[in-house]
Amino acid sequence: MFDYDEKIDKKIEQLKDDMIVYAKKLVSFPSVSGNELGAQTYVKEVLSSLDFNHIDMWEPDIDKLKNHEAFNSGRTNFKNSPNVVGTKKGIGGGRSLILNSHIDIVPEGNLNEWNYDPFGGDIANGNIYGRGTSDMKGVNASIFIVLKAFQEIGLKLKGDIIFESVIEEETGGAGSLACVLRGYKADAAIIPEPSNFAICPAQQGGVWYRITIKGKAAHGGKRYLGESAIEKIPQFIKKIRELETYINDEYYSDLYEGNPIPFCINIGKVNAGNWPSAVPDSAIIEGRIGVPPNSTLKEIRKLFEESIEKVSEEDSWLKHSKPDIEWFGVSWPSAQIEVNHPIVELTRKCYKTILNKEPLISGTPWGADAAVLTKYSGTPTLIFGPGATAHDADEHIPIDSLLIFSKILACIILDWCGFIN
Amino acid sequence: MFDYDEKIDKKIEQLKDDMIVYAKKLVSFPSVSGNELGAQTYVKEVLSSLDFNHIDMWEPDIDKLKNHEAFNSGRTNFKNSPNVVGTKKGIGGGRSLILNSHIDIVPEGNLNEWNYDPFGGDIANGNIYGRGTSDMKGVNASIFIVLKAFQEIGLKLKGDIIFESVIEEETGGAGSLACVLRGYKADAAIIPEPSNFAICPAQQGGVWYRITIKGKAAHGGKRYLGESAIEKIPQFIKKIRELETYINDEYYSDLYEGNPIPFCINIGKVNAGNWPSAVPDSAIIEGRIGVPPNSTLKEIRKLFEESIEKVSEEDSWLKHSKPDIEWFGVSWPSAQIEVNHPIVELTRKCYKTILNKEPLISGTPWGADAAVLTKYSGTPTLIFGPGATAHDADEHIPIDSLLIFSKILACIILDWCGFIN
Repeated sequence: MFDYDEKIDKKIEQLKDDMIVYAKKLVSFPSVSGNELGAQTYVKEVLSSLDFNHIDMWEPDIDKLKNHEAFNSGRTNFKNSPNVVGTKKGIGGGRSLILNSHIDIVPEGNLNEWNYDPFGGDIANGNIYGRGTSDMKGVNASIFIVLKAFQEIGLKLKGDIIFESVIEEETGGAGSLACVLRGYKADAAIIPEPSNFAICPAQQGGVWYRITIKGKAAHGGKRYLGESAIEKIPQFIKKIRELETYINDEYYSDLYEGNPIPFCINIGKVNAGNWPSAVPDSAIIEGRIGVPPNSTLKEIRKLFEESIEKVSEEDSWLKHSKPDIEWFGVSWPSAQIEVNHPIVELTRKCYKTILNKEPLISGTPWGADAAVLTKYSGTPTLIFGPGATAHDADEHIPIDSLLIFSKILACIILDWCGFIN
Repeated sequence: MFDYDEKIDKKIEQLKDDMIVYAKKLVSFPSVSGNELGAQTYVKEVLSSLDFNHIDMWEPDIDKLKNHEAFNSGRTNFKNSPNVVGTKKGIGGGRSLILNSHIDIVPEGNLNEWNYDPFGGDIANGNIYGRGTSDMKGVNASIFIVLKAFQEIGLKLKGDIIFESVIEEETGGAGSLACVLRGYKADAAIIPEPSNFAICPAQQGGVWYRITIKGKAAHGGKRYLGESAIEKIPQFIKKIRELETYINDEYYSDLYEGNPIPFCINIGKVNAGNWPSAVPDSAIIEGRIGVPPNSTLKEIRKLFEESIEKVSEEDSWLKHSKPDIEWFGVSWPSAQIEVNHPIVELTRKCYKTILNKEPLISGTPWGADAAVLTKYSGTPTLIFGPGATAHDADEHIPIDSLLIFSKILACIILDWCGFIN
């Protein structure tokens, strides 16, 4: 396909040990939200060594973010949580590409469930183990060796490469939003979240809801004097299921073909009442609504509110004592780009070149930062990455998958950005 | 009706101030479970002053109680929680009567909801205010002045009066059970719980249940991979309501005529799931079942277990992952005596004599110690008392109600026990 195919593939394979060193080092930092400084300092050093022209490391200013409609964070400042964005200027005449990867990880959870040190980067069974290996520090190492391969071969890109190592993806996306507001944009972006090599031009969003049902307390031995908030719950469950069916019909996308419920409304938590022999005067239901790629947070919230209003209208008690709805916690917008967008077509072509088979083109079942880039910086963004696990104990990624990803990415970059040798 | 009617009524009225002193003093002790010693020491002093022949004050031995089927307590010992039982021997030839009253109170709760000091015994609007005034320290004062009136008039009873000041009524009835096991019994007993002057030959019992429903966790965005414990809840609610209807038909008692649901099954608490975007793998439902007077705890537990088993049989998931049922916390047996039992007939007659109207004869909607006395000591026990509030903020009792109760009780005692002057 390219003149340099074989040479680059070989170089990437030679850099396998470098890749493992990068990955192990990245995994060694427990970079949960609020503790990203060490990992980001290391990323900055690596970018320097890879001849990035400009490296921008800054703590996002919450005052500049907080009024944005996509802002979504429980933090009051981003002290010790810098973003790092490296720009590798091309020689001109090519297309620019953002590679966006989050440095924050979720906590390691219960250590008893791990067979490996979550921060050890142990290698076994052909995998690297540790929190963030798959989501998504391992893939940073894949990216680094592609750029190192280009460097060692002496290959120069025409278009710019912008590498964004962002904070806060796991907790609402403020890191990527800060990059957008700082002006970073490109002709396309790839976020190598763990899609298991599925090419995802569509990203599902998600939004949390809380319904508070109000009843009337009474002694349980005279329950007829009260109004049970718990016994209203079945009406809400029924209506939520009807809404889920409606949303899946109304926002049907063939990117989710074969998925039994592409856009789930989960009912995750119920807390109601406080004494076995008292009629419960309150029931709180919390859950998450999947936001289809071709809808908006606003539309979905409105549909949900209308459904809950219908429950109230149909119940003589709730009609006069209406439940509260809160949109709390996190929300991720959804987004999609055209299925035949050039970056999608190119990724598909490179996947086939390296793996000699057709890729899966689909939508993500979860939220990530792609929507922020697509919607607010005008950068058409694709999710496509090698990982397949996330957030579990014994998180890991196969070393072979990282090398395959490097090869596919090299193919994409060379075509997208153009190059001279 | 009696020769001494007018004389005794007048004497009781003269002793109104003594009654208030007794009541205020009793209310001043915060005698929650574990802290009854002060109040009981005072009761012992009063009984001494009222010429009780034998006063028995002892800390129940938990080893002697714990294997009894009616034992029901979270305590490991009864240190500083003595019972006090005073026996006033009659001169012979009359019927004996137990007067049983619990000294323990429920906690005062949120002080902000009180307009009066919960332990102050304030007098306002013709009421005495404070925790335990109605449930049931005020009525002890009513009893004391009846006995004091007899003492001052020089009236001697033929049958014995046994006054039981018991611990632990609010937390399962271990105090009354200890009296039964110590051998106290009589030809009848009256427990002046706050029935608002209803004469209650039947006592409803109560038992707490806990159902733990097991589901299967999954990410909320792929809820079809899990099994929601929350979404099983409606099936349980439906079955519980069917059981309630069945129990109310099967154990119908005309003592509860006019009550919309004599024997309620309350669903008091639900705690399910722990994360809005995870499929909940557990849901815990807690509640209370009213036990009809003509049934047993055992029968009702069995019916409940069978109902829950039916829910499992009808659901393909629950069939293989059955919910757990626990009988936790408190349970009170139910009991009843004949509606035309002599103690009922006499109480009715005395009520009419003093108040010149027909009393309400009914069953209690709650559990108390009557079942323990009726079932395990062979003492036919009636609930009949002046209070009307319990466990709320601003608990209170009208002073007039206490005096009326004293007069009715004097009438009952004179007829039941017999007397000479």
